[in-house]
Amino acid sequence: MLELQGAQEQLLGQDAQALREALAHGTLSSRALAEACLTRITRLDPQIRAFAWIDPDYVRAQADRLDNLHKSGAPLGPLHGLPIALKDVIDTADMPTENGTPLDQGRRPTQDAAIVARLRDAGALIIGKTVTTELAFLHPGPTCNPTNVHHTPGGSSQGSAAAVAARMVPLAIGTQTGGSVTRPAAYCGVVGLKPSFAALPRRGVLLQSHSLDTLGIFAQTLGGVALVYDAVVEGKLGRMTGALTHAPTVRGAQQFGILATLPGTTPGEPAPQHPDVRAMMANVAARLGAEAIAMDLPEVFDHAALMRECINDVEMAACYAPYQAAETDTRRLSPEMHAALTRAAGHTTASYHAARAFQHDLISALEPLFARADVLVCPATPTPAPKGLGSTGSSIFNGLWTLCGTPTLTLPLYQTQDGLPLGLQLVARPGAEAILLRRAATIWQKLQ
Amino acid sequence: MLELQGAQEQLLGQDAQALREALAHGTLSSRALAEACLTRITRLDPQIRAFAWIDPDYVRAQADRLDNLHKSGAPLGPLHGLPIALKDVIDTADMPTENGTPLDQGRRPTQDAAIVARLRDAGALIIGKTVTTELAFLHPGPTCNPTNVHHTPGGSSQGSAAAVAARMVPLAIGTQTGGSVTRPAAYCGVVGLKPSFAALPRRGVLLQSHSLDTLGIFAQTLGGVALVYDAVVEGKLGRMTGALTHAPTVRGAQQFGILATLPGTTPGEPAPQHPDVRAMMANVAARLGAEAIAMDLPEVFDHAALMRECINDVEMAACYAPYQAAETDTRRLSPEMHAALTRAAGHTTASYHAARAFQHDLISALEPLFARADVLVCPATPTPAPKGLGSTGSSIFNGLWTLCGTPTLTLPLYQTQDGLPLGLQLVARPGAEAILLRRAATIWQKLQ
Repeated sequence: MLELQGAQEQLLGQDAQALREALAHGTLSSRALAEACLTRITRLDPQIRAFAWIDPDYVRAQADRLDNLHKSGAPLGPLHGLPIALKDVIDTADMPTENGTPLDQGRRPTQDAAIVARLRDAGALIIGKTVTTELAFLHPGPTCNPTNVHHTPGGSSQGSAAAVAARMVPLAIGTQTGGSVTRPAAYCGVVGLKPSFAALPRRGVLLQSHSLDTLGIFAQTLGGVALVYDAVVEGKLGRMTGALTHAPTVRGAQQFGILATLPGTTPGEPAPQHPDVRAMMANVAARLGAEAIAMDLPEVFDHAALMRECINDVEMAACYAPYQAAETDTRRLSPEMHAALTRAAGHTTASYHAARAFQHDLISALEPLFARADVLVCPATPTPAPKGLGSTGSSIFNGLWTLCGTPTLTLPLYQTQDGLPLGLQLVARPGAEAILLRRAATIWQKLQ
Repeated sequence: MLELQGAQEQLLGQDAQALREALAHGTLSSRALAEACLTRITRLDPQIRAFAWIDPDYVRAQADRLDNLHKSGAPLGPLHGLPIALKDVIDTADMPTENGTPLDQGRRPTQDAAIVARLRDAGALIIGKTVTTELAFLHPGPTCNPTNVHHTPGGSSQGSAAAVAARMVPLAIGTQTGGSVTRPAAYCGVVGLKPSFAALPRRGVLLQSHSLDTLGIFAQTLGGVALVYDAVVEGKLGRMTGALTHAPTVRGAQQFGILATLPGTTPGEPAPQHPDVRAMMANVAARLGAEAIAMDLPEVFDHAALMRECINDVEMAACYAPYQAAETDTRRLSPEMHAALTRAAGHTTASYHAARAFQHDLISALEPLFARADVLVCPATPTPAPKGLGSTGSSIFNGLWTLCGTPTLTLPLYQTQDGLPLGLQLVARPGAEAILLRRAATIWQKLQ
């Protein structure tokens, strides 16, 4: 199903950087690229259901406007003509934004989210909105995994990951509060970047947890996520694309730190892993050889999952109070959401603030690891995408990094014996996106 | 009183970078520099009262150990032999840390704070602990302003600012939750750097507000703060000192945005300013000429002060609950602290979380300004240091930047007609410390 059919779809075999070059040089028009995306979406999306909203005529109108801009000789943005899909929790002034809940059915924001404004400034074509789980939390939408439609694509940015994985669009934006970028990227087999906390602007994005919510980027390649990151990040010196060609100043040893296991929900016990995930980590360690050192997370991380959940519950209950108030029929919010909102009431103010203070302890506790290795390497998920669409799988290997605010990249370099993708997760210090990317390029080259 | 007396004290006329070079080349010993500091502290501190704890013999022992290290040919850290003073809210394993409250009298931490460990690794000599207001909040300690001892040095990092201003030590560390680095630096006439939120590690530092607390650096010069920043920051690519010699990649126009006024406590009305502060801003605008554009903060900033106070109150009440519990006699905490703790109980959970979400709106609202100017320039304080030691002055021009997490520098380039220092405050995007420093160097050169 996923094979590229015909000349039009062949275009979508190229990554975002190659497409960008062709668009900039005028050897490819934005309209032609948009038509390729539309053709493929028309063919595949009835089954994959990645899109929550798309208007082909409006896509064509945007593409033509961008092509006219190119012809006029106007200066072009770094994403000129590139189609990008947005998770449907990101406000758009010209498209509905329904946040994956019937309570927001027909909602039309009056303003673009800050990141949308930046994407448009950079010349991107906003192709449409992608399916999110209910309010970017646990209850799944209809999207299935393009690599095997009987398996979940993960959540909550499920439509964004699936749309890129199915090559319906070269780029997409999602959000992560637990593992909502890394996990669907890993399950679907694409590159997922969760930047440092607060690196990308959240104004106009559904707020679930002000201490955790982070915007993220999906693409086929490292160059793709870097291209978008550089176009939308502000005030950072270490832009990512530059890191592919110029070595950033790296402090300390340039070694990879291998975390073969990560804490689970039982303190003192690592989370169980699928045998193919264990095999992946053994293979990574063997192939990196002397460039890698085995490491373990300090014990304090045993509490990370519960602390993250406390922060997420309490802040979500505060942020979603209007939804609770608007719920005239208790079936308008899912059982998963009701359970979390009930749990939130059980957290005391003291435990919430202790968990917030704990965030900073975790970051400090990573220092000895980062003093020995500039990038940590671990599995992106404990298993490949689970079968069935009723759950989006476990975010246990992602929530700790969201809590720490460390940037992460997941790389689609491995798969299971059954052909399901497995993600390899790389982690760097907060703010060290350029180092993360450069080292990811090294790993990609060695392990692909 | 502040004149440098004798050859020993003359040493302290040099800035941290010059001292560092002399120490590295062996033309100056750490012991000689430490003795100069001790001599000057002995002479001046009985009046200025910047230090909360210092042990001359222990200072000498540290200096001798560092000198021996130098002689042994061991590799030297970037701060080798440089004395640095720590606000007494920063834990030290080898010195008491009393947090400015009788409730912590005689408290001896078992571990160094993360930043202290980094300073020691970099070869710094921890000279002693400096006076903080009570629990880094409003109630003043005994420190007076070295430029005029009848005036407050500001707070809460009052001892750190005064010690550097009096040239008792070349460098000091403080913390800021409202305006506790910028304001004392401005009042005392030294350079104060408040880095981006979370740029420096807070483990082992008294926690007042997990959403606001930020470590900061005091020095005589830009090179001094940059030297310390680079030695203790981790994972950042754009180190500051490099920015003095290599141009960081700057996005958008390299103009200064002049904010001649800032919001006060009455929405819609700018905060009143001392005539000499207004004259400073007029002079800055005139001398920067075409390199500067006049700007105003968006209206949303009218609410910043109240939102910041809500976050500070609620988080402080949570963090200081153990102090409240330990207070057997109600006079053990100050009236200012009691008032804030009472006020905290009046904030609802909803208003607290709204204020936290508002933090991110503010950062987004700065984008249009930063699109036109890479650095914003405004007064550091609405007045020079007020007379009397009963209050530490107003932080109204600082709290908004702490809330936004933007890095700020205050430069001691102006003074009042009465000879009191005035600070010029520079602000850049979160993470843009290197741009901030480079542009500050430009301003310094033009306006000094």
